[in-house]
Amino acid sequence: MSTWDMRLRALPGIPMISTGDDIAALICKAAAEDGHQLTDGDVLCVAQKIVSKTEGRIVRLADVTPSPQAEELAQRTGRDPRWCQLVLDESEQVLDLIGRHVVTLDHRGLVDTAGGVDLSNAGIYDEGWACLLPVDPDASARRIRDRIRELTGTTVAVIVTDSLGSPHREGSHGAAIGLAGIVAVEKPPTGDADLYGNPAHGDLNRVDELAGAASALMGQSGAAQPVVLIRGAHYTTGDTGITPLLVRPANTTMER
Amino acid sequence: MSTWDMRLRALPGIPMISTGDDIAALICKAAAEDGHQLTDGDVLCVAQKIVSKTEGRIVRLADVTPSPQAEELAQRTGRDPRWCQLVLDESEQVLDLIGRHVVTLDHRGLVDTAGGVDLSNAGIYDEGWACLLPVDPDASARRIRDRIRELTGTTVAVIVTDSLGSPHREGSHGAAIGLAGIVAVEKPPTGDADLYGNPAHGDLNRVDELAGAASALMGQSGAAQPVVLIRGAHYTTGDTGITPLLVRPANTTMER
Repeated sequence: MSTWDMRLRALPGIPMISTGDDIAALICKAAAEDGHQLTDGDVLCVAQKIVSKTEGRIVRLADVTPSPQAEELAQRTGRDPRWCQLVLDESEQVLDLIGRHVVTLDHRGLVDTAGGVDLSNAGIYDEGWACLLPVDPDASARRIRDRIRELTGTTVAVIVTDSLGSPHREGSHGAAIGLAGIVAVEKPPTGDADLYGNPAHGDLNRVDELAGAASALMGQSGAAQPVVLIRGAHYTTGDTGITPLLVRPANTTMER
Repeated sequence: MSTWDMRLRALPGIPMISTGDDIAALICKAAAEDGHQLTDGDVLCVAQKIVSKTEGRIVRLADVTPSPQAEELAQRTGRDPRWCQLVLDESEQVLDLIGRHVVTLDHRGLVDTAGGVDLSNAGIYDEGWACLLPVDPDASARRIRDRIRELTGTTVAVIVTDSLGSPHREGSHGAAIGLAGIVAVEKPPTGDADLYGNPAHGDLNRVDELAGAASALMGQSGAAQPVVLIRGAHYTTGDTGITPLLVRPANTTMER
């Protein structure tokens, strides 16, 4: 490995995850069985879905009673009122409705669709399970990092990833929603200069770049590659959590 | 290599670029000297800056005469009026002013800052050079892909990358501005399903994920790693160009 290389490996051997599973131990086991010894500086990107599952953030729609507001949202979007109730519960504000899509600002400050409430890969549709984001994805990332350090003596960075949309781009892309051991916004080093000696400027959102890279390998749907080990990434270590990355919308088009 | 691996390599040996250089030939040479034989399915991410330079998209500020509108923008932002003129020339609309930053919709449909006009790595500040985006980054990407095919018989995908901001994220991240051989928005395969057999949905913006991954390796400022070879990426081949990815802002806060 050199400063010219970055390698990503989706760890095979991550089993189907249930509430209470020790995700860090499963990652260490999968890495070892795959012939990888975790190393200081490695970045582990972990899909939100399996983090949520270990933390029991799975809800059965049958257990949800929709409020009048949820019924109204269901009318406007053609969605299940119980799903709408979860979306409202998870959101600070509904920002926009685009067809069936509900654009939200969630309690963590993330601008997302449906407050991160996701029906895919949560369980069988007919059984009606929904997956919610971790309550505190930074805390989830820290727990995984700390437990990996406990198990292996190695300090890695952990990024909890999710698929997000962007206002000026079609489709969704992998992005960071929780961080441990890597700063959210990277400042150019003092004295750093461009090729011509001009001072460097501009803050870098490196964590979304790495989350996106991992997401390109994770695949989607049935790929079942929820943990990606990145080796050779250049990043700034630190524990800012995700908040410095998040820009809340200046104007909202819809109040709850 | 397997479906579990993705490898990125910043090609060393890309020289400082001048107008008229055959960038594809330089890439092939750098790859060969680095021990890499380009292979069908490889993705080459090429920094906008060197593409612009080969295409002569470098302007000396001394040659620019600012209009009254540019003088007004300079007053409001504290920037050089000649730079402001270039920004206005490159932009369809000025969307917002945030301190010194000018958020624009450019003629290509990209939402960017300063219409993509960049003073860094264009030349020495004192000499006052600015770098503009390629006139048609898709055409640039196609030229590089076609020339690589001519030189090596290999069909690669080419992504022209730039650093862009996002409204809901601090800092900039690598993103795609021009494409050849890879579709802008990836549709889930018909019949694709999640782990539980539920139908998959949602369009994927894979090209920004790959551009971001490359950007994480390219570094910034003086790193001089403008070409990244990605091997093992999963993507859909095709020639949509960048347009299907671009969402124009629904509401603009400022008219030119």
